[in-house]
Amino acid sequence: MNGAQALIRTLFDSGVDTCFMNPGTSEMHFVAALDSVPQMHSVLCLFEGVATGCADGYARMTGKPAATLLHLGPGLGNGISNLHNGRKAHSPIVNIVGDHATYHLKFDAPLTADIEGLARPVSGWVRTSPSSRVVADDGAAAVAAARTPPGQVATLILPADTAWGEAEGPAAPQDPPPVAAVPEERVSTIANLLRQGEETVFLVGDQVMRSAGVSELACRIAAGTNARVVGNRAGARVSRGAGRPVLARLPYPVDQAVSLLAGARHVVLVGAKDPVGFFAYPDSPSRLAPPDAKIHLLAAEDEDVPSALDALSEELGTPASPIEVARYERPSLPTGELTPEAVWTALCALMPENAIVADESVTCGRQAYPHTETAPPHDWLHVTGGSIGQGLPAGTGAAVACRDRQVFAMEGDGSGMYTLQALWTQARESLNVVNVIFANRSYRILQGELLNVGGDAEPGPHAQAMMRLDSPELNWVSMSEGLGVPAVRVESAEAFNAALRRGIEEPGPMLIEAMV
Amino acid sequence: MNGAQALIRTLFDSGVDTCFMNPGTSEMHFVAALDSVPQMHSVLCLFEGVATGCADGYARMTGKPAATLLHLGPGLGNGISNLHNGRKAHSPIVNIVGDHATYHLKFDAPLTADIEGLARPVSGWVRTSPSSRVVADDGAAAVAAARTPPGQVATLILPADTAWGEAEGPAAPQDPPPVAAVPEERVSTIANLLRQGEETVFLVGDQVMRSAGVSELACRIAAGTNARVVGNRAGARVSRGAGRPVLARLPYPVDQAVSLLAGARHVVLVGAKDPVGFFAYPDSPSRLAPPDAKIHLLAAEDEDVPSALDALSEELGTPASPIEVARYERPSLPTGELTPEAVWTALCALMPENAIVADESVTCGRQAYPHTETAPPHDWLHVTGGSIGQGLPAGTGAAVACRDRQVFAMEGDGSGMYTLQALWTQARESLNVVNVIFANRSYRILQGELLNVGGDAEPGPHAQAMMRLDSPELNWVSMSEGLGVPAVRVESAEAFNAALRRGIEEPGPMLIEAMV
Repeated sequence: MNGAQALIRTLFDSGVDTCFMNPGTSEMHFVAALDSVPQMHSVLCLFEGVATGCADGYARMTGKPAATLLHLGPGLGNGISNLHNGRKAHSPIVNIVGDHATYHLKFDAPLTADIEGLARPVSGWVRTSPSSRVVADDGAAAVAAARTPPGQVATLILPADTAWGEAEGPAAPQDPPPVAAVPEERVSTIANLLRQGEETVFLVGDQVMRSAGVSELACRIAAGTNARVVGNRAGARVSRGAGRPVLARLPYPVDQAVSLLAGARHVVLVGAKDPVGFFAYPDSPSRLAPPDAKIHLLAAEDEDVPSALDALSEELGTPASPIEVARYERPSLPTGELTPEAVWTALCALMPENAIVADESVTCGRQAYPHTETAPPHDWLHVTGGSIGQGLPAGTGAAVACRDRQVFAMEGDGSGMYTLQALWTQARESLNVVNVIFANRSYRILQGELLNVGGDAEPGPHAQAMMRLDSPELNWVSMSEGLGVPAVRVESAEAFNAALRRGIEEPGPMLIEAMV
Repeated sequence: MNGAQALIRTLFDSGVDTCFMNPGTSEMHFVAALDSVPQMHSVLCLFEGVATGCADGYARMTGKPAATLLHLGPGLGNGISNLHNGRKAHSPIVNIVGDHATYHLKFDAPLTADIEGLARPVSGWVRTSPSSRVVADDGAAAVAAARTPPGQVATLILPADTAWGEAEGPAAPQDPPPVAAVPEERVSTIANLLRQGEETVFLVGDQVMRSAGVSELACRIAAGTNARVVGNRAGARVSRGAGRPVLARLPYPVDQAVSLLAGARHVVLVGAKDPVGFFAYPDSPSRLAPPDAKIHLLAAEDEDVPSALDALSEELGTPASPIEVARYERPSLPTGELTPEAVWTALCALMPENAIVADESVTCGRQAYPHTETAPPHDWLHVTGGSIGQGLPAGTGAAVACRDRQVFAMEGDGSGMYTLQALWTQARESLNVVNVIFANRSYRILQGELLNVGGDAEPGPHAQAMMRLDSPELNWVSMSEGLGVPAVRVESAEAFNAALRRGIEEPGPMLIEAMV
């Protein structure tokens, strides 16, 4: 048994049964070893950013890591953008990067690069395996590291000779450390604060938003006190739709976010961090909470948030009475002009139960939440790290994770261009993904930002040209068909409704270019 | 004048007149400032790896840096793969990466990342500008750093407030350090070695291969002694074609490279490094020179190689007699089956004078050199760092640099998929690029490598599936048209000839999907 075989067997024994890969020569022994563990599901991606984005989407839906397989420093480089999103989402990912054989590194061959240096900014754990004798142990450690609460990217660098050399056999799975409990005193302090009755915001993070039950608990506690619940901006996975609590969510524009938090005397962090602006702007604050509000920590992102809320609820004697949840209501199908609002309305009208929405619609998504609130229960995946090119891959990975659920990947035409290769993997794996491209032929968000920074002055023609995608026009139908995914362009709400219905009814992926 | 305006003016005054960009919010002041220096040519790219690959191709053709503009850590991440190639090509590149405002960084907003950490593995110089008062000076220093012999990637990180804050004005250009001269003793040592008459290989690097004159000089010296000239594997830019010396070149397969160097008692490094295998393989050597050959340094990559060869020639009294150069001969146009050899033959038959070939054809390019030797003089750009996804962007950047020259981007169908967004920039800029996709529907090189590692055993179906791109089939014509570049699929040599002729005759870009 060689190192690669021992590693793959160890990964599988440790619960990693899916690998998103774009291999090269230095990974050939790993690839050759796949047939020794045929239960390992290998998913080929044509670009590494697709592989890492898939692993992120997969982790968000399963709560467990997939592996990636990337080719040396440049392959890792291509994967960094979506590893960044995965890092900010606390997604467990076992990121495997091949390298030259240990003895070959000193010769500085063309592909030699500082892989550890590239990996550290996006990884919570980095290790280069030194030999085929220990690579299986390193694999077990990587899985445990990835699963360390609240989840992280663990990068294991795999010199080629650790894959082809002789190994003892697979290693035993390792347990990750348990999630840290929140100290009782902290719970008591927050309970006392809430009893004082001053206006308070619970700023809740991923552990709350991903679970309808935990969200309900937070809302019940808030309802019994003078508090309200606000979700952090871009949840990794938000459980929402009919029957689930409606959480306000921090908006992207700084002034709107400041308004939402205005009046709060206290902000209690519930698995979230002190809220800050996505970007800084001249004459705008970085921190979003009112300057005189006090910030309190109930639970940090890596602590046991559900148990802390349970304890807080118990200490406060929160009644079990139901809280307000979204009602179930299918809106009428939209008619006439195709606008972003019409797209979201149609989605709300037609979305099947238990769907997954991977949302990278940027400006076109500003009205997504209110228009889809009453749809059947579903999960919503956001771009956690602000790194564009995440929607198509994350939707793809989510679809690999949940083959019985319908996925919608909602994309800007600008943002979709970073990782359009994901469509090919959708076709190859026959995934039930309806990809909706909001085709506004511009970096619309930047046009707004450019106006923001310009003050009174109208941006000049050179600047404006850098925001426009209309010369030449992108044709998403052609690109999608070229990648093996059937596609249709629609220019009216009625046509969109029909295309969306078709996409849901037919198996396999489809793309709708929505001319908004 | 704000920092962004001062920086752009300084870049322009320092000789940087082209910027390949994919900006985001934190770069909006830089973009807004473009209209204050309208001579700066801004080229929009839809993916950062296109921008960095363009800057690499541009630098190889002009010898001077272009700027990039990238969006924080993830934008840099997407650019790393082609910065790696640029680094290995010693291409001068001024790599500008926006960041959060200095005071915003401590809040760990979603896009916050360790940008310097990501930049260092691919940059020879990294600096984060601390304020708008000095950002122009930092820009001048970045250009000088990029131009430091033999050329390098200089990454300047631009916090948003250094762009929007008040500046004193542009900074004066700074001179890079001069190229280091080769010590006379070293020249004398090599001269004495050559006089002994033992079999010697001159391993020549980029400074030799990029110049027909310097190549001729190396060949003349070799002809007068018992030496032969071998080019390093992947030259950043190789001057070749009719009337230029024919250099043997280190092949990719280790056994062929070892054979080429066999018999040499001495290897003299002429702006090159001790030759090593692209990858290591079990039971193959890392070093390619015969184990008992002595390695001698005439000139390092960052030293003045042409002057060292001049001095060596003078010391040896090399006669000025002409050496053997490639003859001029247009082959007959190929007929019948469309093979890689037919593609190269047609290119040799039809290539106009002074063309540029950006070659990422991987396995399909193994016969490219012999089949194109007698074409009119041209420049050939290789993938220097082995990082795939370089051909289309480098061809695009070369075409921006040399608008009066015909560019051919020769691509594998697998390798082209990493940065196909380059086609859109070709269309937008009306660049004269004929893109040829060798469509073999596989990672053909990996199929070979997989057989290499498998030994006697046939690779299993799971492994083989990771090498095949035929399920679904890619349709490059559709993708290209979707990106605004007219395209045609050809299945015979005759059809390829006609398509190639049309691509050369018509202005603007075109793509040919060659079914080989």
